[in-house]
Amino acid sequence: MEKNRLEAFSDGVLAIIITIMVLELKVPHPEPGSSHVPNLQTLKPLLPVFLSYVLSFIYVGIYWNNHHHMLHSARRVTGGILWANLHLLFWLSLFPFTTGWVGENHVAATPTAVYGFVLLMAAIAYYILQRTIIASQGRDSMLATAVGSDWKGKLSPVLYLAAIPLAFVSSWIASGIYIFVALLWLIPDRRIERVLAQREHQP
Amino acid sequence: MEKNRLEAFSDGVLAIIITIMVLELKVPHPEPGSSHVPNLQTLKPLLPVFLSYVLSFIYVGIYWNNHHHMLHSARRVTGGILWANLHLLFWLSLFPFTTGWVGENHVAATPTAVYGFVLLMAAIAYYILQRTIIASQGRDSMLATAVGSDWKGKLSPVLYLAAIPLAFVSSWIASGIYIFVALLWLIPDRRIERVLAQREHQP
Amino acid sequence: MEKNRLEAFSDGVLAIIITIMVLELKVPHPEPGSSHVPNLQTLKPLLPVFLSYVLSFIYVGIYWNNHHHMLHSARRVTGGILWANLHLLFWLSLFPFTTGWVGENHVAATPTAVYGFVLLMAAIAYYILQRTIIASQGRDSMLATAVGSDWKGKLSPVLYLAAIPLAFVSSWIASGIYIFVALLWLIPDRRIERVLAQREHQP
Amino acid sequence: MEKNRLEAFSDGVLAIIITIMVLELKVPHPEPGSSHVPNLQTLKPLLPVFLSYVLSFIYVGIYWNNHHHMLHSARRVTGGILWANLHLLFWLSLFPFTTGWVGENHVAATPTAVYGFVLLMAAIAYYILQRTIIASQGRDSMLATAVGSDWKGKLSPVLYLAAIPLAFVSSWIASGIYIFVALLWLIPDRRIERVLAQREHQP
Repeated sequence: MEKNRLEAFSDGVLAIIITIMVLELKVPHPEPGSSHVPNLQTLKPLLPVFLSYVLSFIYVGIYWNNHHHMLHSARRVTGGILWANLHLLFWLSLFPFTTGWVGENHVAATPTAVYGFVLLMAAIAYYILQRTIIASQGRDSMLATAVGSDWKGKLSPVLYLAAIPLAFVSSWIASGIYIFVALLWLIPDRRIERVLAQREHQP
Repeated sequence: MEKNRLEAFSDGVLAIIITIMVLELKVPHPEPGSSHVPNLQTLKPLLPVFLSYVLSFIYVGIYWNNHHHMLHSARRVTGGILWANLHLLFWLSLFPFTTGWVGENHVAATPTAVYGFVLLMAAIAYYILQRTIIASQGRDSMLATAVGSDWKGKLSPVLYLAAIPLAFVSSWIASGIYIFVALLWLIPDRRIERVLAQREHQP
Repeated sequence: MEKNRLEAFSDGVLAIIITIMVLELKVPHPEPGSSHVPNLQTLKPLLPVFLSYVLSFIYVGIYWNNHHHMLHSARRVTGGILWANLHLLFWLSLFPFTTGWVGENHVAATPTAVYGFVLLMAAIAYYILQRTIIASQGRDSMLATAVGSDWKGKLSPVLYLAAIPLAFVSSWIASGIYIFVALLWLIPDRRIERVLAQREHQP
Repeated sequence: MEKNRLEAFSDGVLAIIITIMVLELKVPHPEPGSSHVPNLQTLKPLLPVFLSYVLSFIYVGIYWNNHHHMLHSARRVTGGILWANLHLLFWLSLFPFTTGWVGENHVAATPTAVYGFVLLMAAIAYYILQRTIIASQGRDSMLATAVGSDWKGKLSPVLYLAAIPLAFVSSWIASGIYIFVALLWLIPDRRIERVLAQREHQP
């Protein structure tokens, strides 16, 4: 029952984050007195904002999916879990800001590096939450088994860390790394599902 | 239990989409130093924004209703369903943008065509989600029976597809088609309700 | 189970409406280059916006409370109830707009009348929802008994209807009526609670 | 079941408050025609806004955590509890405004005092909600036992009250007090958890 409310609050925050990001995609206002008819060219300056929105949408989707699975395998909620969860939500709440900043500046170096920094901090916050849950459930818990070696969770921060300085060499390399990490996670992670399925089949 | 969280997250996103659309209906600010008293004329320029809001509100309402019924008949949630659902939410999240753009430009051709394009993509995303759920539940599942020939689901994308080029002939024809499709869905779809009722009455 | 989702969606929309209303209370930006130190005088122009926010907050609170009790006493959800509920949410979603308009124009006549019009439409939508639920549950249902003569629900629209033209005589009279109706509903309505308590005590 | 909906609505409002606060962290727009490349200096003016966001995020987190525990120990929901809860949400809904005002004015005296005033009112509203719940559950209820002497709940308003005039002496002293109170609450409050654990172990 306690867990339900933690999930509901996190769902609420994630749902709002994913939706207010779209507010950065600002409706092009017709200039007063102008007889300019809007066409597809009007949307062209919005393209980088749109693409950074798509990437961030996928990232929030990945976080929601993994958060969903992770909490599904947790049995009880402690004060430490509540705060580790809020810490994760804090860094995710900065996504709309960094997404808008990258998009409006056509993937300039500093915004791209700051985007990576927030991704890095969110990844670290996720790792802390995972460790906090495992610590409270026991090392042989369902989550510990399911997470296993967690190579994705360990590789991602390393890649973000590499992307931050690389953004000053070429922001396209950094962006490429962010897209690569997103694809890495999009490939379905059946680990937890498999462990869950096994448990259900055991007598 | 897993399904609950998918529903809760979708409800959250849909609730926010439906509500931030109204933010495009911007309060007319009194000009500083002006002694102009606001009257109903002040609201007149907002009328197209208001009408596009009404149409989009009805569309989000239809999606919420159908989503509600569709997930009600699903028994379990897979990774594929989670992502098909996020894909649908992505296209729906663009509604506030296209609604505002159409409204502010008094139903100009390109915004009207783009509005139709997002409707089309949302309809396709809904169809993919439906297929993904049926695939995971089995062909003789409750949803497969309930959906049946799904003529509405098949006709709607065709009509949107026709409306997009027609928007450049007359944006009123395109708008008329969008309103027609909305009315088509507003007529209560008792298919799923009927199948559900039958199952409950069976021993 | 179906009812849960209707409640969750309505809660989401009402929570967002109540919270985005506060966005009209815009942070007074320090003018660039100005050495002006903000003080309580800076907040003075926001007072009418604040007061209209308080009134609208109370109205949304009343709607949430009553909606809560009404749906609590409903047993099943039909397509008609879903749409009657969306219709109510539509009018409530216009509260942030009318609240901001009244506040920014220091309770001018037309905004005050439009505020009352939206209150009137929401009251009518609530009445339709109530009738739709009673129709689906049966005349001797818990809700029908609990609502009883429903003098508040019948008096409120009449008062709003009177306030709309009176706003053009004096917007303070109209505002006074809106405050009076809010107070009328704030006085706890123990009807449904009482009927619920009786049923629980019956064998 | 009634309690669930109160929690869901409060979660929704708190999730939105915590997320719209970040909207005050406005994306620095590149000036049109400017060849200025954004760098970390571009973010420097946002630092006070960011820091006030961090503090307010922690405060909303504390309120959510305590609200979570408090309602967990409540058994039934009365009309009085519903309104005491809405009263608390009202004051919390002003956090985004005061947070933005303090941040944009680089912790000027009046905004800092107003920030403290809203913290004070929220603390009083929380106390009223706590008393209302205890009154409806009985003096020997789980919550009454858990809350105990409630020294934190009594000390906090006193400190806010001291900080408000002190903001006019030095806004940094006032800010220091707000940070101190936040840290006071961040230290995990195991009182309710302990009482809950004891009850579960009792036969």
